[in-house]
Amino acid sequence: MLSKSQISFIKSLHQKKYRKENGIFIIEGIKSIVEFLGSNYQLHSIYFTSAISTQLPKFDTNIRLFEVSDEELRKISTLQTPQGILALVHMPLDSGVDIASLKNQFSLVLDDVQDPGNFGTIIRTADWFGIKNIVCSEHTVEAYNPKTVQSTMGSLCRVNVSYTNLADFLGKVNLPIFGALLDGNDIYQANWGQEGLILLGNEGHGIAKNLIGKITVPITIPRFGMAESLNVAVSAAIFCSELKRFSGPTS
Amino acid sequence: MLSKSQISFIKSLHQKKYRKENGIFIIEGIKSIVEFLGSNYQLHSIYFTSAISTQLPKFDTNIRLFEVSDEELRKISTLQTPQGILALVHMPLDSGVDIASLKNQFSLVLDDVQDPGNFGTIIRTADWFGIKNIVCSEHTVEAYNPKTVQSTMGSLCRVNVSYTNLADFLGKVNLPIFGALLDGNDIYQANWGQEGLILLGNEGHGIAKNLIGKITVPITIPRFGMAESLNVAVSAAIFCSELKRFSGPTS
Repeated sequence: MLSKSQISFIKSLHQKKYRKENGIFIIEGIKSIVEFLGSNYQLHSIYFTSAISTQLPKFDTNIRLFEVSDEELRKISTLQTPQGILALVHMPLDSGVDIASLKNQFSLVLDDVQDPGNFGTIIRTADWFGIKNIVCSEHTVEAYNPKTVQSTMGSLCRVNVSYTNLADFLGKVNLPIFGALLDGNDIYQANWGQEGLILLGNEGHGIAKNLIGKITVPITIPRFGMAESLNVAVSAAIFCSELKRFSGPTS
Repeated sequence: MLSKSQISFIKSLHQKKYRKENGIFIIEGIKSIVEFLGSNYQLHSIYFTSAISTQLPKFDTNIRLFEVSDEELRKISTLQTPQGILALVHMPLDSGVDIASLKNQFSLVLDDVQDPGNFGTIIRTADWFGIKNIVCSEHTVEAYNPKTVQSTMGSLCRVNVSYTNLADFLGKVNLPIFGALLDGNDIYQANWGQEGLILLGNEGHGIAKNLIGKITVPITIPRFGMAESLNVAVSAAIFCSELKRFSGPTS
């Protein structure tokens, strides 16, 4: 049985302020938890119902385990339909972007993406296409938001996410910067080369004006119908797909 | 000022049961409303705050207009942050799938997609790529769910959505059926031809077993990293993008 203070601590982590203060975030579902257990992330504690206890893998003895009732899980869960298991995970320190590590590969750069579901889907898509790094503007939605975490379907533990001032970062980096714009070159004709950054903008306003000048290759997904724009996670996916189609399986 | 019964009627439309009963659904935001006004859909009534009244276009005189307070709009809105304007729209009759009309083009077929945000994003993406028809299994999420409508960003008024028994439909139709599977042919090498159906499955379970046998061309988006799967709206987008890349702007 959980104490009142445990419940109130876990519930506080539903809010960004307390996640940041404690350096801890929540993941839910057996699949996510198994993936995080096999990653570099450190788990703090795991809360599971008896129904799921037979599915539990072997745990590191440093992780505190709590069997909880359905009612207790409902109290601490961030989901409308809790999935039988929830874990608290230590946030890694964001030690800033290591520019040298971005060479010879492609990375995503997000300018103020706001929707946690979109961000989570972008992380999952990046993981599918073998993209290891996502660099975000300081006002991009938090990677540890429960909706972001849930939408990544476990991929968060395999993709590095850092936050930085994008104008400074893009000014320093010596890589091609492909920008998703409405009036760039046809994405299907692009020459991606072997490395670069894919810059994607905010859902409503696109890429900030002060960053557009940093783009070295403006790129457009041709429009065949009438929609005014594409969802940012959809654009990100088409960019990832196109550059992998170009580079082939060895990149 | 709205009467109590008006407010309770509009609030009832937040639920599928009452939308179906009344044949009316809710759209919100000036952009969506302008797009629906210019479409074949019939608007029933519009509710707007004084702040947005200067942005209103000319209306058909058959549409009832109500200026409402912020407080009233908050009561009837389906959004956490109402956008100053809401309209009620008559649902078109779903007269079933007109198979002959699917010739010489590509259409999407969705097997039990459940998330309204995913469905709305698929409708928006279809509209971007000029895909006019989406055929859904009977258990696919409702196109008039407020979250679906919102995610389409107005594209719902330009894409035909019908619901049907997919096993029957796919048995009758005489078109190539491209199915999104994990072990099909490389999407980047596909020969799409000039017409066909793109079959996409449920978020958790993929395409139902009884439909897999109907697929004439199994297709896979190659995986370069570690994620177990892609979001269904992301898969749909990559399929649309690839077949348009293949067919070119004249298709």
